[in-house]
Amino acid sequence: MAEKKKIIFLIQCEDRKGILAATANWFYTKGYNILHCQQHTDNIEKRYFMRIELDMQDLNTTRKELEEEFALFASEHQLSWECHYSDYRTKVAIMVSKTSHCLYDLITRKDEGELKCEISLIISNHPDLEMVANQFRIPFYYLPITKETKRSQEDKVLTLLKRFDVDLVVLARYMQILTSEFTHAWQGRIINIHHGFLPAFQGANPYRRAYERGVKMIGATAHYASEDLDQGPIIEQDVVRVNHELSPDGLRDVGKDVERRVLSRAVQAHLESRVIIWNNRTITFNIER
Amino acid sequence: MAEKKKIIFLIQCEDRKGILAATANWFYTKGYNILHCQQHTDNIEKRYFMRIELDMQDLNTTRKELEEEFALFASEHQLSWECHYSDYRTKVAIMVSKTSHCLYDLITRKDEGELKCEISLIISNHPDLEMVANQFRIPFYYLPITKETKRSQEDKVLTLLKRFDVDLVVLARYMQILTSEFTHAWQGRIINIHHGFLPAFQGANPYRRAYERGVKMIGATAHYASEDLDQGPIIEQDVVRVNHELSPDGLRDVGKDVERRVLSRAVQAHLESRVIIWNNRTITFNIER
Amino acid sequence: MAEKKKIIFLIQCEDRKGILAATANWFYTKGYNILHCQQHTDNIEKRYFMRIELDMQDLNTTRKELEEEFALFASEHQLSWECHYSDYRTKVAIMVSKTSHCLYDLITRKDEGELKCEISLIISNHPDLEMVANQFRIPFYYLPITKETKRSQEDKVLTLLKRFDVDLVVLARYMQILTSEFTHAWQGRIINIHHGFLPAFQGANPYRRAYERGVKMIGATAHYASEDLDQGPIIEQDVVRVNHELSPDGLRDVGKDVERRVLSRAVQAHLESRVIIWNNRTITFNIER
Amino acid sequence: MAEKKKIIFLIQCEDRKGILAATANWFYTKGYNILHCQQHTDNIEKRYFMRIELDMQDLNTTRKELEEEFALFASEHQLSWECHYSDYRTKVAIMVSKTSHCLYDLITRKDEGELKCEISLIISNHPDLEMVANQFRIPFYYLPITKETKRSQEDKVLTLLKRFDVDLVVLARYMQILTSEFTHAWQGRIINIHHGFLPAFQGANPYRRAYERGVKMIGATAHYASEDLDQGPIIEQDVVRVNHELSPDGLRDVGKDVERRVLSRAVQAHLESRVIIWNNRTITFNIER
Repeated sequence: MAEKKKIIFLIQCEDRKGILAATANWFYTKGYNILHCQQHTDNIEKRYFMRIELDMQDLNTTRKELEEEFALFASEHQLSWECHYSDYRTKVAIMVSKTSHCLYDLITRKDEGELKCEISLIISNHPDLEMVANQFRIPFYYLPITKETKRSQEDKVLTLLKRFDVDLVVLARYMQILTSEFTHAWQGRIINIHHGFLPAFQGANPYRRAYERGVKMIGATAHYASEDLDQGPIIEQDVVRVNHELSPDGLRDVGKDVERRVLSRAVQAHLESRVIIWNNRTITFNIER
Repeated sequence: MAEKKKIIFLIQCEDRKGILAATANWFYTKGYNILHCQQHTDNIEKRYFMRIELDMQDLNTTRKELEEEFALFASEHQLSWECHYSDYRTKVAIMVSKTSHCLYDLITRKDEGELKCEISLIISNHPDLEMVANQFRIPFYYLPITKETKRSQEDKVLTLLKRFDVDLVVLARYMQILTSEFTHAWQGRIINIHHGFLPAFQGANPYRRAYERGVKMIGATAHYASEDLDQGPIIEQDVVRVNHELSPDGLRDVGKDVERRVLSRAVQAHLESRVIIWNNRTITFNIER
Repeated sequence: MAEKKKIIFLIQCEDRKGILAATANWFYTKGYNILHCQQHTDNIEKRYFMRIELDMQDLNTTRKELEEEFALFASEHQLSWECHYSDYRTKVAIMVSKTSHCLYDLITRKDEGELKCEISLIISNHPDLEMVANQFRIPFYYLPITKETKRSQEDKVLTLLKRFDVDLVVLARYMQILTSEFTHAWQGRIINIHHGFLPAFQGANPYRRAYERGVKMIGATAHYASEDLDQGPIIEQDVVRVNHELSPDGLRDVGKDVERRVLSRAVQAHLESRVIIWNNRTITFNIER
Repeated sequence: MAEKKKIIFLIQCEDRKGILAATANWFYTKGYNILHCQQHTDNIEKRYFMRIELDMQDLNTTRKELEEEFALFASEHQLSWECHYSDYRTKVAIMVSKTSHCLYDLITRKDEGELKCEISLIISNHPDLEMVANQFRIPFYYLPITKETKRSQEDKVLTLLKRFDVDLVVLARYMQILTSEFTHAWQGRIINIHHGFLPAFQGANPYRRAYERGVKMIGATAHYASEDLDQGPIIEQDVVRVNHELSPDGLRDVGKDVERRVLSRAVQAHLESRVIIWNNRTITFNIER
């Protein structure tokens, strides 16, 4: 069964009475069927968030016209908003270092249709994973980084992202810290996987430190990259139970599974336009549980 | 911080365009702020479900008037609906046999404010748990059941439910099967906990059978009681990991925890007006995950 | 760090006093360090199970001699036993139909070193997944099956398993029922993934039936194949939370993840000689939780 | 079915060859049936840990004699060890402040036989929970604490612990920091529940900080109290999934469940002599998963 094509609006504004009625009405008047509507009110910040799915069959103008018309309504009601179309394939660049588990997971989920995107290219500071890229015929760029070359190599990355028209960068265990110029320019469009349950074990060697602290669960955290390391808005987290039998290496192996799971869920949420960023938090509208 | 008082509407109807806009508009026109609105469309059954939370501060008529006015709107749009008020304390009867774990859990969660209800009485076919009832000063009725007395004792139960003005019956490991007259009369108002992951292990001795089948997880299921044993609409389920070390008795002990958790979650969902029944399924609007 | 090479003994016998002391002593006398020893006593069946890991460095005879010597001890104490060597790479045949998610998962986990085995060949009754086999340079055999050709095609499968010297067959969503001759001949050496939480939803279309029953969690079960469909000894199970929003197709998509996870865990347990079969149950010695 | 009475030895020593054989042999020679034996080798610290369950039926000396005899063997092999008897009821003091959820959970689990102990007394720095103590006829001591009275009141606590012959102190949401004299004197015999997933959110207000960081799961940690706040050896941890809908108050409510679960599991592990402390970590031998 072909999936229904959808138009998705992500909206946020100051909380006030009647915003749902006004918005639902606007779409109704324009002839749209609202397939799904999710809202959230942050009562502490007095902020309102909304995700609306429309049936693309009801589109009787150009996309540009729809957006221009909605912009008028949004301006009148002081809404911040984005509009996405489920038939657009987000172009993704994956950045990796040496470990392949997250990379394989993303590629195979894309191939199986779970992640609706194009993987346009893979960039690495090590040559090890070129073979994986070749297996799936994805362009691979090897950009090694030293302290001296960091800035110039990042410029090459940025050029590649531009050339491939990339929408989203996924750091799938990329073991380099991006400069704040990079993360700033790509704010809200870089997803990183941290192999620890943030805010526990920020920074390096989380499995070693988990072993030393004797924790009984280890976790992983997918978040948007921000200027401060491991401080960006969290999209998804999960944990797995461990015990005294696991050495730091054992924790690392067990942790792979949770890293894979958490990263792919976060990327999926982003690709399906389920995430709104507000300050340093995310509103993540889930479907499945 | 005192919790906001709310009016909750549970609505269902055939799916059609504009129902959200019309409903949101109706409440807006009447001066209500929609605090939260959740919807679900069953595309297979072409059925639409909605849960709306209003701020009770906005109530500027009697409750009766609100309901009469909404009835007109509902009739015009062919909606089935219920209306609940968060300041009403649902009156609950708990039926038990000999095991106390679910009973204790329900009572203590009520005492701590997690379950917003009154526990009006406890009814049992065994005298064992009277002491628990006394500890918490809840009226206790002992109604032993034999094949011969089943009907007459059930009549006494029904009389008690009426006398105490009970809204909801919770079978907290009550080891008697209710007659179909009873379950029919109280349809959608009896919650049962089954100590198995339905539809696996329907009927008796689920832990024994779980042991024999060598399962690696055991579960529990809370559902509305229906005429057919263990066939009613499921509200909540959960499982716990087990292994070869557990005998049937061990499974039963481990299972207590998941029974407690599942039953209290289901009762909470019912008390917070989060459950809509449709055919043999439930739409359960959760908040917390 | 190179992993320690190990010799693993799986032992079972009638329960009786002193069996641990006798066995530990035997290995000690022969100069072996016991790295890890796990036991289980089934008090209902009065049966004793043991898994012993030795350090392969201590091996000062041929493997054949070790086994012959232990056979004498085992015979004296009436032990059933198997002996495995962690440096042996189990030869695995994967059988699939059209869906690739479990196949990809097994192959990539093997490539990343999580599954210590060789994937010798892939056999399918459909041509669809040849491309995946080619990506990873694994021999692919297409053996379509009709009612008439079932037996002759199974003979070809058996011939292939022999030719490739296969130790273990993994049915990674292979949508054909094997004949009882096949399952009997390969007893304890075929692992199947069932896309339901057995014993719930045995047989066909478990996701459809899960939808209709309105369950709140769906599961998957990995088990050794037996003559009766979905009745064999369970190795691993897991579930994932679902809700009313998921159609049968949605359940199937969400279920993929739990199928992958459960199948790879079961295969890993088998490859690491952690599973002992007894009657229709498994003793599965886990390390990690 | 009456449960088997057991003698439990917890043993640790430097790792070396033959320790299992020697120990198993010693018990065999003395006529004991080893019901269950669990070991762990920490390869990094070169340390060996063992938990042995004996059948108390085989005891043919006094307990004192058994311990004296084993002490000789232990001394010869340089073992550290403890010996426990499953028919001894550990005497527990529970310390609380104002919230009742963990207290209720511990008491009712004790009443249902899950926690095999006596709850000898409840001590609180607030009068609020006296009613709970009365319901279950447990002595209640109200010892309010100000900066000036802290030391003198702690002395009264210590006197009470002595008078009631207490073995284990459980801090069930006791919102006072114990002095290092106290924690030092009671090392390994005080279990605290921290309402955060340590080492994340150490210190005060973990739910507020979890909200602000926008985490997607919250947790709880049960640990032995040490001189440094929230730094002691972890016994048990667990988490629960949360989302953007939960305010700090909402997180606190959802967190109650995981606090209850984690604390009672940790207390149970301690009561069943399943925990060995080594440096700042615990070896926790679990049975059930």
